[in-house]
Amino acid sequence: MQTIFDLDTPALIVDLDVMETNLNRLQNYCDQHGLGLRPHVKTHKIPDLARQQMKLGAVGIACQKLGEAEVMVEAGLPDILIPYNLVGLHKYERLAQLARRAQITVAVDSLEVARPLAGYLHQQGLVVDTIIEVTSELNRCGVTAADDVVELARTINTTHGLRFQGLMVYPSSVQSMPLVTEALAALHKAGLEAPMISGGSSPTAYRSHEFPGLTEIRVGTYIFNDWSYLRSGICGLEQCALKVSVTVISTPTSERAIIDGGTKTFSSDMGYPMGYVVEYPEAQIYQMSEEHGFVDVSRCGHKPKVGERLTVIPNHACGTLNMHDVLIGFRNDTVELQWEIAARGKIR
Amino acid sequence: MQTIFDLDTPALIVDLDVMETNLNRLQNYCDQHGLGLRPHVKTHKIPDLARQQMKLGAVGIACQKLGEAEVMVEAGLPDILIPYNLVGLHKYERLAQLARRAQITVAVDSLEVARPLAGYLHQQGLVVDTIIEVTSELNRCGVTAADDVVELARTINTTHGLRFQGLMVYPSSVQSMPLVTEALAALHKAGLEAPMISGGSSPTAYRSHEFPGLTEIRVGTYIFNDWSYLRSGICGLEQCALKVSVTVISTPTSERAIIDGGTKTFSSDMGYPMGYVVEYPEAQIYQMSEEHGFVDVSRCGHKPKVGERLTVIPNHACGTLNMHDVLIGFRNDTVELQWEIAARGKIR
Repeated sequence: MQTIFDLDTPALIVDLDVMETNLNRLQNYCDQHGLGLRPHVKTHKIPDLARQQMKLGAVGIACQKLGEAEVMVEAGLPDILIPYNLVGLHKYERLAQLARRAQITVAVDSLEVARPLAGYLHQQGLVVDTIIEVTSELNRCGVTAADDVVELARTINTTHGLRFQGLMVYPSSVQSMPLVTEALAALHKAGLEAPMISGGSSPTAYRSHEFPGLTEIRVGTYIFNDWSYLRSGICGLEQCALKVSVTVISTPTSERAIIDGGTKTFSSDMGYPMGYVVEYPEAQIYQMSEEHGFVDVSRCGHKPKVGERLTVIPNHACGTLNMHDVLIGFRNDTVELQWEIAARGKIR
Repeated sequence: MQTIFDLDTPALIVDLDVMETNLNRLQNYCDQHGLGLRPHVKTHKIPDLARQQMKLGAVGIACQKLGEAEVMVEAGLPDILIPYNLVGLHKYERLAQLARRAQITVAVDSLEVARPLAGYLHQQGLVVDTIIEVTSELNRCGVTAADDVVELARTINTTHGLRFQGLMVYPSSVQSMPLVTEALAALHKAGLEAPMISGGSSPTAYRSHEFPGLTEIRVGTYIFNDWSYLRSGICGLEQCALKVSVTVISTPTSERAIIDGGTKTFSSDMGYPMGYVVEYPEAQIYQMSEEHGFVDVSRCGHKPKVGERLTVIPNHACGTLNMHDVLIGFRNDTVELQWEIAARGKIR
């Protein structure tokens, strides 16, 4: 019987009990409110976890890139939303391959994206469900005016390769409500049906029922939670399922311990402090190089020693998973299984 | 004939002419000054590039983790320094395996690291060359006083599993000279030979001959250079060999273009701006999410369009390589070869 203390470090580990509680909690919320839950697999990148989410009642999954979708379709996942503008012939060819094997929905935010994509798919004898991304306070992609949404929806429906299905926004926050509401009214007035209104983000997840018209949500991090969520009050310590087991390799001064994980173990996402040390809550990870984590232990009464194992809740779950090839599942410190992080690094 | 403009994006590409010039320049400098060049393969993570570096005259390579060394020994690299405290039975077992197949040198910075390691190796009938890390202004690992260096060197030489060979420091900067010089004098006084004095860091590389006693340098980034080096004046634009080819996927406003690479393509290392856009020097990558790069194009006279390819010099070469599975080599825009980034993610 192997425990998490027997693992070579650094090791990425997940508390399966906590993870399952997290999964059930959001699925139950969605069921109660008649909302579709579409887990965003960019967080875990593991087909088996996507299948678990489907079994619990998910309506499908979301993949940020075609490469993730290819891994998931290969693993038998039947319904995938790619909420991302697909641009260029390589992408069209790969989408066509997937659309022949699974129910694929894509998102677009401009005529420049929609027209050549539709043209290619029509040539291939395919019609792909399409939603329009509207912008949010994130100021990333997305159509910025309701009238432009209507024009784009009309164009989509006159092409033969795409079929207009609705809208998406990220995050589905209070701030993003007005434009979605306005766009829906304008579509209704223009006689255009929008059966799918897709919102998203874990921080806003439990307020999704307050967002008018939302039919489903894309949510990734809720499966694990992380230190950025803990700091922001989005989750509690007992809801953090993902951890990294590390070893203290140096204690050059009484104020400083060095652990054997740095940015290549935790990513540099979301700044400092770069994780929460479970055994030493007073400790602070104040700096990282690629393979070293710098821990300020000056406020710890008892100090970690060379060779001691520490358990760190990482800053950013998705970014951390992307640094690892394997995720190890445990219950009560006993290792139960391990998953290959099959869609890690699928950035195309 | 495939060009870099035919590649699916985002794609990690390297200008082979620039890379070879970078490699030759530092090797020539080291040759002129009678210094050993020990390329740190944590930057490129590619056995074939390590072999090229050896062929040009490198004395060996450095690997930050055992996992990198395992890939390199498997590929036939004969002489490896692991400038990293190895702690715990898993590490001892793996080191013993490597030490039977190649010339391995390790570093230690405390009795707590050295003693159990030496004990294990002695049990296995092995003696491994060992250098002592002294601290620097980086305040990471390393012994902090010359007397402690002498004590640790003596202990190493009385164990049967380790053999004292010298010192290492990172970076080998002006600030780190006094402690190294003091430690060398103390070792000399104590009758202890230190044939290997290993310095490092690309920014200090061309001043290594000014560092008293240095016998070799560990340098990684010099092979590619990056935007952080360019900004700091360590290299010029014509010396930046590593680039990422991306596609513009959205231009929601006249001020903003969104590219299809974010932190999963570039890493989050070294903050903003997160790369240099070759085609639009006035553009600024001011934000990233995992799969999106936010580019401020407000100062560009001519603006990038959806579908246009951009070439970005990444912030941090090592961190960027670690996000990718493949590096594509080109000359004059023509694709010449591709390498698997075989030691990517080898964090153990």
